[in-house]
Amino acid sequence: MKIGILGGGHLAHYLARAAALFGLDVAIYDPDPQAMALRYTAHGFSASWDDAEALARFAEDCAWVTIEREQVPLVALRLLAERGVALRPGVDELDVLQDRLALKRKLDARLEVGRFRKVSVATDVLDAAQEFGFPVWLKARRGGYDGRAVVKVQRAADAQPALERLVDYGELYAEANVGALRELSVTVVRAANGDMRAYPVVEVVPRADMCHTVLCPAGIDEASAIRATEAARDAVVLLNGVGAYTTRLFELDANEVVVHKVMPRPHESGLYSLEGVITSQFENHLRALLGLPLGDVAQIAPATVSIALVGERDGAPNPNVLAEALQTEGVHVHWYGHPRALTGRRMGHINILGYSTDGAEKVGLYCLSRVHL
Amino acid sequence: MKIGILGGGHLAHYLARAAALFGLDVAIYDPDPQAMALRYTAHGFSASWDDAEALARFAEDCAWVTIEREQVPLVALRLLAERGVALRPGVDELDVLQDRLALKRKLDARLEVGRFRKVSVATDVLDAAQEFGFPVWLKARRGGYDGRAVVKVQRAADAQPALERLVDYGELYAEANVGALRELSVTVVRAANGDMRAYPVVEVVPRADMCHTVLCPAGIDEASAIRATEAARDAVVLLNGVGAYTTRLFELDANEVVVHKVMPRPHESGLYSLEGVITSQFENHLRALLGLPLGDVAQIAPATVSIALVGERDGAPNPNVLAEALQTEGVHVHWYGHPRALTGRRMGHINILGYSTDGAEKVGLYCLSRVHL
Repeated sequence: MKIGILGGGHLAHYLARAAALFGLDVAIYDPDPQAMALRYTAHGFSASWDDAEALARFAEDCAWVTIEREQVPLVALRLLAERGVALRPGVDELDVLQDRLALKRKLDARLEVGRFRKVSVATDVLDAAQEFGFPVWLKARRGGYDGRAVVKVQRAADAQPALERLVDYGELYAEANVGALRELSVTVVRAANGDMRAYPVVEVVPRADMCHTVLCPAGIDEASAIRATEAARDAVVLLNGVGAYTTRLFELDANEVVVHKVMPRPHESGLYSLEGVITSQFENHLRALLGLPLGDVAQIAPATVSIALVGERDGAPNPNVLAEALQTEGVHVHWYGHPRALTGRRMGHINILGYSTDGAEKVGLYCLSRVHL
Repeated sequence: MKIGILGGGHLAHYLARAAALFGLDVAIYDPDPQAMALRYTAHGFSASWDDAEALARFAEDCAWVTIEREQVPLVALRLLAERGVALRPGVDELDVLQDRLALKRKLDARLEVGRFRKVSVATDVLDAAQEFGFPVWLKARRGGYDGRAVVKVQRAADAQPALERLVDYGELYAEANVGALRELSVTVVRAANGDMRAYPVVEVVPRADMCHTVLCPAGIDEASAIRATEAARDAVVLLNGVGAYTTRLFELDANEVVVHKVMPRPHESGLYSLEGVITSQFENHLRALLGLPLGDVAQIAPATVSIALVGERDGAPNPNVLAEALQTEGVHVHWYGHPRALTGRRMGHINILGYSTDGAEKVGLYCLSRVHL
């Protein structure tokens, strides 16, 4: 049996590793011929997202095709759907997930997603500011991720310049600012028969819009954890998702939580599960796709911390990074093997298991202090 | 950086998985185009062991070439050595390791390996029996593994027929029978600078000459464990090994141990380490090759048991095996994806972590009772 993955980055690679545990063949498709996951399959394809012929060869004999990231252009999924390829998520599901406004509207039916409204011109933005108060977040409906296509509007004079900065992104909307105490993330895996398992609520500490440090479990009140988990479960059900779905949330005062976004896949905030949980998010995503029983989501240690290894300069990767990082015993090093280091690029990550998130994080920070990326 | 592996079975695949954690490219070479590890690399090569041109293409840009199994024909290593490819083990080391008698002679200098003597004709076998007592094990120096090229000589009349059965194997020798209580295995990983780490002593419960069940740690007296570990460390030093070396031993009465054989690689008896130890034998083998610091060999749980999934018939693999095996929570399933099931073929294995080997084994046996292989 063969599984196809659209996108060939490190998340695709971890999905492929999980598939290999079950003896499955894996086909990977990425327009970038240097995409790292292509190196670890005999069925790698590199062509544009609208190359119907290459997509057909890629999907040949695939029981399911899934995606590594929700930004995979819909044209690729549509071409595959026309050939009758089984897709998770499907075209219609991904269409909603790529449209921030449509997603918010869908979730708003049952979940707290914060206030938002569609905007087109400067007066709309000012209306939004009157309703929500400043600052307002101006966002593109489509094409945004990792902080892209987002502009903060601090005062009335910012409205028109903000609109102009996003002019290439099509339709826009405005979001109220929420005073978040913490950013949280919950991955829920859901089987086609409706069975669900929720991974622990983790705290995400972003840096430069990257999911930089993840603390599992999040050091939050039990009431917040329950609300976050319930919200993530509800989100997957509302979206009729099958597979691992990651919900990012903001924790507010008084144990309130607000859903920020939902992604139909294992996410960077779930990399800790590779060594930290009995069944990783990647393995459970596949189990759900294949109709296999979902696996145990218990933590292996009381705490796991995952820290990104971020490039600090442009150039050849430092060959000593691995050796230095590995000096710290028991730290699981993941190095993606990118041919070039770039400032701000995620070059790998480390997972640290321990008795407390605080202790594990300190081990990780000590380790990082010896690595020159 | 690229690593080459000669042999493309599941052990090669686990080496390749470890290499991918470090972002390394992996080239795999196996004459069998269906060898499972070939499916998970963009650099797979299938040609005969003496195809100099294919070997050259395989080894291009490889920092190191290692082997999956010690039966890889020396001709392949010689052809690579002629091209200046860095090999672990080297040609001379593997030459000794493939020759059971030469290996025993080498180890005999410092270790208890049992009594043995070279034999050629029936009277030699009878002389051995007179010295050791019946039964005597008649073995080929080369070409034997997993119980092949081994004949038990129970009485004088068996000597000539036994010699005739091994006539195609070249030179022979005889071994004394040892009254083993248990079979043990110890993997030691050794760096080029001499650093060593010994994995826990495990008990191997063979079935039909296959390493069927592995219990970690072995339920043996501390004195036996120390002697087994010391013997395994000494063996690697005597052989000047770099990488993971697996030493199989017999435990006798009174905490005595006898070295049975040594293999220059991670072995089936170390599959438990994939989930059971912080750094798997495969990862540490690579670390040693690459000159990286050796990783922590502490167990993740107090006990881990690994049980082979063995084909019970010939035919298409049972598609329900995975689903049924996965019903048992927390059991790590490894399924190699062989296109055909064969009676007696290792189709995969399960690793079970627990608080005791007894408990973990029972979980595994319960799981197996629900699987029809």
